[in-house]
Amino acid sequence: MAVELKDLTKVEDNYSKWYNELVVKAGLAENSAVRGCMVIKPYGYAIWEKMQRVLDDMFKATGHENAYFPLFIPKSFFSREASHVEGFAKECAVVTHYRLMNNPEGEGIVVDPSARLEEELIVRPTSETIIWNTYKNWITSYRDLPILCNQWANVVRWEMRTRLFLRTAEFLWQEGHTAHATREEAEAEALKMVNVYRDFAEKWMGVPVVVGHKSPNERFAGAEDTLTIEALMQDGKALQSGTSHFLGQNFAKAFDVTYTTKEGKQEYVWATSWGVSTRLMGALIMAHSDNNGLVLPPKLAPIQVAMVPIYKGDEQLKEMTEKLESIAADLRAKGVSVKVDARDNVRSGFKFAEYELKGVPVRLALGPRDLQNGTIEVARRDTLTKEVVSQEGIADYIVSLLDQIQENIFQKALNYRNSMITEVNTWEEFVEVLDTKGGFVSAHWDGTPETEVAIKEATKATIRCIPLDAVDEEGKCIFTGKPSARRVLFARSY
Amino acid sequence: MAVELKDLTKVEDNYSKWYNELVVKAGLAENSAVRGCMVIKPYGYAIWEKMQRVLDDMFKATGHENAYFPLFIPKSFFSREASHVEGFAKECAVVTHYRLMNNPEGEGIVVDPSARLEEELIVRPTSETIIWNTYKNWITSYRDLPILCNQWANVVRWEMRTRLFLRTAEFLWQEGHTAHATREEAEAEALKMVNVYRDFAEKWMGVPVVVGHKSPNERFAGAEDTLTIEALMQDGKALQSGTSHFLGQNFAKAFDVTYTTKEGKQEYVWATSWGVSTRLMGALIMAHSDNNGLVLPPKLAPIQVAMVPIYKGDEQLKEMTEKLESIAADLRAKGVSVKVDARDNVRSGFKFAEYELKGVPVRLALGPRDLQNGTIEVARRDTLTKEVVSQEGIADYIVSLLDQIQENIFQKALNYRNSMITEVNTWEEFVEVLDTKGGFVSAHWDGTPETEVAIKEATKATIRCIPLDAVDEEGKCIFTGKPSARRVLFARSY
Repeated sequence: MAVELKDLTKVEDNYSKWYNELVVKAGLAENSAVRGCMVIKPYGYAIWEKMQRVLDDMFKATGHENAYFPLFIPKSFFSREASHVEGFAKECAVVTHYRLMNNPEGEGIVVDPSARLEEELIVRPTSETIIWNTYKNWITSYRDLPILCNQWANVVRWEMRTRLFLRTAEFLWQEGHTAHATREEAEAEALKMVNVYRDFAEKWMGVPVVVGHKSPNERFAGAEDTLTIEALMQDGKALQSGTSHFLGQNFAKAFDVTYTTKEGKQEYVWATSWGVSTRLMGALIMAHSDNNGLVLPPKLAPIQVAMVPIYKGDEQLKEMTEKLESIAADLRAKGVSVKVDARDNVRSGFKFAEYELKGVPVRLALGPRDLQNGTIEVARRDTLTKEVVSQEGIADYIVSLLDQIQENIFQKALNYRNSMITEVNTWEEFVEVLDTKGGFVSAHWDGTPETEVAIKEATKATIRCIPLDAVDEEGKCIFTGKPSARRVLFARSY
Repeated sequence: MAVELKDLTKVEDNYSKWYNELVVKAGLAENSAVRGCMVIKPYGYAIWEKMQRVLDDMFKATGHENAYFPLFIPKSFFSREASHVEGFAKECAVVTHYRLMNNPEGEGIVVDPSARLEEELIVRPTSETIIWNTYKNWITSYRDLPILCNQWANVVRWEMRTRLFLRTAEFLWQEGHTAHATREEAEAEALKMVNVYRDFAEKWMGVPVVVGHKSPNERFAGAEDTLTIEALMQDGKALQSGTSHFLGQNFAKAFDVTYTTKEGKQEYVWATSWGVSTRLMGALIMAHSDNNGLVLPPKLAPIQVAMVPIYKGDEQLKEMTEKLESIAADLRAKGVSVKVDARDNVRSGFKFAEYELKGVPVRLALGPRDLQNGTIEVARRDTLTKEVVSQEGIADYIVSLLDQIQENIFQKALNYRNSMITEVNTWEEFVEVLDTKGGFVSAHWDGTPETEVAIKEATKATIRCIPLDAVDEEGKCIFTGKPSARRVLFARSY
């Protein structure tokens, strides 16, 4: 299937349409025949695999192990934790039967009415309940703690309005579920993991994030505290990109998970859970890309360098390709992923546009004059600039250039993000910034859920987080005028 | 949770009970609260991850890419391919509703009757239908072919009798789905991938397999040919361990997937699919393990070398552990995974038994006398032998020993398997071998499904495969006496 290079909607014309088209045209994902479920195409999956590998290494480096828990959760499990059921047991896929049969009245197959499950099974929207039901059997003594498990899995939430990667009925994610002997240890774990997410977002994805606490309204259902990383997209809307929850003893109490302390007492176990999902793909795409297509940070790009021979006739094609292959071999030896594109049925201009659309960080082009002069053309995807450089030391040059590009992509996103945090002190300013500039609005809030709801109803903006580094500052709530101890970040969001 | 070292049923007393207990006691997996669904515990999942990594590298080295397709399949998709529906659309999990609500008549939550799906969704038992429905949009010209996709996923088949890893309602697997312009190319792909599975089973798992064609009765529902790798367990029963299917144009026709040839004609696309699953874990466990527990091939062991200090008092513990850590560092530098077990709350005898149960290939023990003499005790899990060797060059010695163990485990299984292939020429011999010796029985068969069914009904043995290397040999069917052109392999199986 030829990549469609033309007709990509422009960022400035319709950001939302641009995003949807880009995801499809760049070969990342598409909608499937099943409402709300996506197909992740090979190029998109290759990026996700890179993300998975890096995150998995980070989880293991912080002492976690992987495990796998069932896809299905008995319906009754959700009722055990009071606030969890409100948050998760509503819009979900319900398995009621376990058999189909040939239609006795005609063609096709129908559900066998005699094969009704005694208790319905829910396709997991998140796994706290089934995991804590399992942990009950794993934990008896303080010696069994901590348990530091992670699971890579698919989950299903029956979303009404879906968008590729950002909000789909089925999505892929990881969910860490840890069990601890003390509150302090669990709180430290939740903080440690949100910082792992921050490092991943900033150092690998090149996406700067604000780390903070969610307000009670926006907390995970069943959590005592939710930490979040909040990213800003190029249209000025925020994207919650990963969360880490301190669950207190809520699930331990719901599933009766206790342990014997060193002193011989029985105590409930403390819990955390934390997750990131294929939503990160949406963040990656929206944070950096432009009218020419994707812009991928080198550390997550499936192809880091694309090489295109410029030629007339088969002999030149062979000469150029041979030279490019030898440069490619040097680069591969340095751990760089390279594609030499010697296709003779598309023009080089088509190839250039294709690699731009796909966000390949560096493109090399080599023609007869280069061969003669010992030079090569180097094009950067992030800046869309070109330069002709010497072939001598080209591999080291490219390795260093990839680092520069990684850094530049992050700096550009960071400068934009920082320019889009606006302090306001009145309701009028608040509304005006939201409507004209967007981004994060740093404002005082009286700390009540009622005020947050009222602000959301009036403006569609929510509290994205109370930043970890928020400084104490006396002020007045922009909505009620009541006293406030520090500013929080508001934004409209995905 | 302490590992339970005692009370493992003996292989010779009850093989089936031994297996079930071993899986749980070694910390590989356990049954969950959901009927037929297992929890894969961290140690079991670590082995599965190693398998995944190796297989994934092999798939990529043969030109395949990963992608991800929806968990759910519309019910009507299964009716499209006539034989596929018979094989797969019966015992499966059916999603009928997408919402729950608070019980209007009391406590808990109930299915919201107003949220019934227009068309039921099936949790994928295998993905040919949804994938070929997708490929329809990916393929128009010969230039779009081949498509070489693989997916790592969970699948659900509502099995009535389940056993950990061997047969579970939900299991993890990979499924390759390829699309080709010609019959020859698709047939070559199916053969290539069954050979990848053979290499993986033999070189990594240390499990010898017979590669062959399934008889029509045992073919995948929708395939024109099914290739299989068949392993033999230590109780003389066969285990189908991986299959690769040539699907002809069946799914292309069912989903109307055609392509334009170079010559401008419209042709249906040719297909293959191939998969291995967490069932391989069952094969790995049953092929090598013994009364002391697991025996893992070094290449797939999460811990390749366990080190245990022998000491009295804290000072000796510190001395021994320091020396072991320095040997561990040398081994890690050579890519060996090592665990130094300095726990002071369990005896070294307990540690020895634990690493035997967990199948760690090599165990090192170091005591004060060793420290004085510059020696160390090396114990092999596969042979249960010990020797005292010099500490000089110990890292190289261990690296080489791990290779020897890998080879020995395979050779032992190969010798056993070869001793368990019995040629028979009469029905009486056939029945006697099955009842007294077990294993593969090489016999003539008249080639008809009816005879295969009759033999299965009489003996519970099925044709495991028609080996690829079967030689032409005129003979008479052991059941009907009718002519046969070659021997096939029968066995009772899992």
